[in-house]
Amino acid sequence: MNPYQAPLAEMKFLLDKVFDAPQTWASLPAIAEHVDMDTAVAIMDEADKISRELLHPINRNGDEQGVVHQDDKVITPDGYKEAYNQYAEGGWVGLCGDPELGGMGMPKMLGVLVDEMAYSACNAFTLYGSLTAGAALCINAHGSEALKEKYLPQLYSGEWAGAMDMTEPQAGSDLRGIRTKAVPLDDGSYSITGSKIFITGGDHDLTENIIHLVLAKLPGSKGISLFLVPKIKVDDTGNLGESNGVTVGSIEHKMGLKASSTCVMNYDEAQGYLIGKPNRGLVCMFTMMNYERLAIGIQGLGTSQAAYQMAADYAKERVQGIAAGGSPTGADSDPIIVHGDVRRMLLNIRVLTEAGRALSVLTAKQLDIAKYGEGEAKAKASRYVGLLTPVAKAFLSDRGLDAAITAQQVFGGHGYIRETGIEQLVRDTRIAQIYEGTNGIQAIDFLGRKVAGDNLAALTEFVNESIAKLADLQHVDAEQIAKVTGLFEKILTAGAVVNDNKLTSPALINSVAVDFLDAFGHVLYGYFWLIMSDAAVSHSDEDFSSQKRYLSDFYINKMLPKAEYHLAQVLAGDETVMTMPESLF
Amino acid sequence: MNPYQAPLAEMKFLLDKVFDAPQTWASLPAIAEHVDMDTAVAIMDEADKISRELLHPINRNGDEQGVVHQDDKVITPDGYKEAYNQYAEGGWVGLCGDPELGGMGMPKMLGVLVDEMAYSACNAFTLYGSLTAGAALCINAHGSEALKEKYLPQLYSGEWAGAMDMTEPQAGSDLRGIRTKAVPLDDGSYSITGSKIFITGGDHDLTENIIHLVLAKLPGSKGISLFLVPKIKVDDTGNLGESNGVTVGSIEHKMGLKASSTCVMNYDEAQGYLIGKPNRGLVCMFTMMNYERLAIGIQGLGTSQAAYQMAADYAKERVQGIAAGGSPTGADSDPIIVHGDVRRMLLNIRVLTEAGRALSVLTAKQLDIAKYGEGEAKAKASRYVGLLTPVAKAFLSDRGLDAAITAQQVFGGHGYIRETGIEQLVRDTRIAQIYEGTNGIQAIDFLGRKVAGDNLAALTEFVNESIAKLADLQHVDAEQIAKVTGLFEKILTAGAVVNDNKLTSPALINSVAVDFLDAFGHVLYGYFWLIMSDAAVSHSDEDFSSQKRYLSDFYINKMLPKAEYHLAQVLAGDETVMTMPESLF
Repeated sequence: MNPYQAPLAEMKFLLDKVFDAPQTWASLPAIAEHVDMDTAVAIMDEADKISRELLHPINRNGDEQGVVHQDDKVITPDGYKEAYNQYAEGGWVGLCGDPELGGMGMPKMLGVLVDEMAYSACNAFTLYGSLTAGAALCINAHGSEALKEKYLPQLYSGEWAGAMDMTEPQAGSDLRGIRTKAVPLDDGSYSITGSKIFITGGDHDLTENIIHLVLAKLPGSKGISLFLVPKIKVDDTGNLGESNGVTVGSIEHKMGLKASSTCVMNYDEAQGYLIGKPNRGLVCMFTMMNYERLAIGIQGLGTSQAAYQMAADYAKERVQGIAAGGSPTGADSDPIIVHGDVRRMLLNIRVLTEAGRALSVLTAKQLDIAKYGEGEAKAKASRYVGLLTPVAKAFLSDRGLDAAITAQQVFGGHGYIRETGIEQLVRDTRIAQIYEGTNGIQAIDFLGRKVAGDNLAALTEFVNESIAKLADLQHVDAEQIAKVTGLFEKILTAGAVVNDNKLTSPALINSVAVDFLDAFGHVLYGYFWLIMSDAAVSHSDEDFSSQKRYLSDFYINKMLPKAEYHLAQVLAGDETVMTMPESLF
Repeated sequence: MNPYQAPLAEMKFLLDKVFDAPQTWASLPAIAEHVDMDTAVAIMDEADKISRELLHPINRNGDEQGVVHQDDKVITPDGYKEAYNQYAEGGWVGLCGDPELGGMGMPKMLGVLVDEMAYSACNAFTLYGSLTAGAALCINAHGSEALKEKYLPQLYSGEWAGAMDMTEPQAGSDLRGIRTKAVPLDDGSYSITGSKIFITGGDHDLTENIIHLVLAKLPGSKGISLFLVPKIKVDDTGNLGESNGVTVGSIEHKMGLKASSTCVMNYDEAQGYLIGKPNRGLVCMFTMMNYERLAIGIQGLGTSQAAYQMAADYAKERVQGIAAGGSPTGADSDPIIVHGDVRRMLLNIRVLTEAGRALSVLTAKQLDIAKYGEGEAKAKASRYVGLLTPVAKAFLSDRGLDAAITAQQVFGGHGYIRETGIEQLVRDTRIAQIYEGTNGIQAIDFLGRKVAGDNLAALTEFVNESIAKLADLQHVDAEQIAKVTGLFEKILTAGAVVNDNKLTSPALINSVAVDFLDAFGHVLYGYFWLIMSDAAVSHSDEDFSSQKRYLSDFYINKMLPKAEYHLAQVLAGDETVMTMPESLF
């Protein structure tokens, strides 16, 4: 099996030709100071190299060996610590971090592509850095200057790691039930006591300290507050002191991601520091959570890309049967890629992955403008971030599992055997549909809050802008434009139907949200395919442009109709979902 | 978590009210001699008991411990041997076997329900008996009287086990490349030399002998012949003698089914006995393979049922959030089954599982009539067996994975943890889409051979008969009947389009087969829901009939539209699938 190769030409094309990165960056002074296309290309080339040479080699053994909980410590598999040191030293953890405090200040548009490469190479490893970057983002956005100065440089440098401590056994999707307590101390800090489960990277041996962001309740309060709780205390000069009453109770045994530690964490009068205002912890945590949601979508995207490469390579090598209508080379047996069903499977993965990358980059572009832009451009980008983040998390992670399973099918019986590695992708990526808010919750956030909660304002703005862009395309079949445009309009109509009935049918949003998100995702991908196909016409590599045309035609012809199915489900409403009494389930 | 409970009321309803088992059995003398509804109900009650008390308890440990290859032997997990002995002594392996040679002579209509229970309780365990029953079926159909008398009683009794030895590294889906050799010996037997991979139950410690059905080539022949090759030689009095040059090379490490041994088998001048005619081995093997194909569909069905029960139990117990529109009990938190999205997931699994059971029983009914009936009834049933077998294998196993993944989603983060057991179902059932012919190959068999190869004759006959039955229903909404009827007609139209273009577009069948099968499956399930809903009206339990009405409405409203999506893919043809050059993949 060929090692992972990042789709660099594809990535550069998206930045340069589809989403106007050079112009966008030039218009944002805080970004322009650090990056132009040449720098970005150099960084991507280097990210490809470390993904292939540093991360992919530890992927398989990490799955076999897993993390071990021993003597109150969590030990990562062989090679993880060395790889993490090198990864941190390369500046990858702080790639998009605040340059005033040791980050590299790179735009998210570039960050998502680097993340994708890392996830393609090794799902489990990449989570450690992703959680750290997310914790840093949250501290930078909501922490005091003192906390930022004390903790961010070491997080960006990767010397310390971060973790997000939310879930408790009785409080998962519903955080109201959190029982971890925070008692104010005289020095302005807090004493944290309680227990959390499912803490990714809660403990490990990769770094000398781990900075936990812990949700807890103040005495007598129903509100939830956010606290920075280091595993090892840090003194005023930044040196590590004694341990802080943060211990690992056990690790979970999971379906996959076996090299990623998932811990039960206990806090026994651990010293913590308030982040943001009291009782406003969820707002702060959502800065991290939204970051992680996009990252988890990208986990699915990275999995899709890796799965495609493995399956395509196998389909070109594995010889079995003869092409319908006779072997193209006159051979006795052909590689299985000659078979329509195998091509169908590969094309399914391919078109969803490439459009998925467009979703990832577009969401990142809005994040960059929302963070570094000004005025109405900044405000609009913020609206689009709200709209696109749950879609990116859910749709990319759902497609990630589909891709891994479809690729496994291309391998036939060999796909079920651990040695080929494709089954590990299925197991590793499955959780992406669940953690950081299940995809059902993403869909309810999307339809309930971002669409209906906003009376369709942001969705209508986004859809109309997209329709206008389609109308301007010069090199795409008018009938295809009409198809996608018509479906965009149907999305608005369906959204309006839900919005009009949300008060009289309180269960409606919850019942149809997943289908609404899936319908929107499929239409959005149709839009991406048309703008990519159009932009590729002028590409210097003729193969590149014809390939985009083939793939776009396949998507519009074969995959886009799925939007109609999901729309039908939305319009079928909630009646048949809600009527059967609970006792008959 | 509640232990597995077989859906006995459901099963009895299908036999008694939907598919007329009593009348069917009474009309087939070879069956009527052994079984009536009372006997069948007693057998189902007992099967439920052993599934719950004998098989389900060894499921989890079997996954943790797995099979072990040690000192040239394969050792099954703790408890497997004891369970297998008890299972065999109960007569379950020979349930549908020839009563002249020690089988119980039960109809397949009953057999599929017993199989489903066993697969629900423990996927891995059930394969051992299923392979044995399949091998016995093949020997009974094609073996000489001497072979039948010598081997069948011990296979039916479960004293010996069976295995199906087809695949070689270079010969998987395409068996032309088989290299295992069979050289004639003077005594009329053959000397078998070669190697096979992916042999389920190829070696284990459950029985004292294993009877392999091995595909091999005669000297100078391209044709493939079938041989009975015992692991241990059997003398003329039926006693076991010396070992027969059949050894296990290694076992595969798999994604799931870890308690099922999957072996590399080596034959070193092993003594074998021809089954059927020389060079006609595939025809004989297909008797076993068709049996196993239905069984593997039932593996998916059993998984679906187990997944549903686990997810529904969890959804009723797990408290999180409040119902949209307020808690029905005025509580602070409700069980998650109040949420529309959770109900949607449960209903998806439920309606596909119950319709899937109808597909399983209908296919079995055709098998019984094809085997024990006479004249045109027998001939028609054979045509329907050919038509329905690939659909049952592919559609049931695809839905099995969907069900397990959807149920896992209901569990949220807990679904990714090994302790809850739902992730084991995902891993165990994944292979069902691959082995015994991938689901792509099933679809090509269905559309290419059974539909287009027959110029739609059998399909048209089946569809018209189904439409006529729908027209006769007394208690079902006419609009729902019109919907399903209209889609059945669209299936025939789409099939005709494929048939008309199969010669000019040789890749067409291969490219659209999976979607054609999926479209047919979804329409067929709509048909099943209407006939079940109609039959349930007179059910003595009012809850039972109203439940069927709720579920039928959900299916027609929410799931049936998926058929349109798959039909659109069929009609979109193969052009966008086949045009992109291989080099661009």
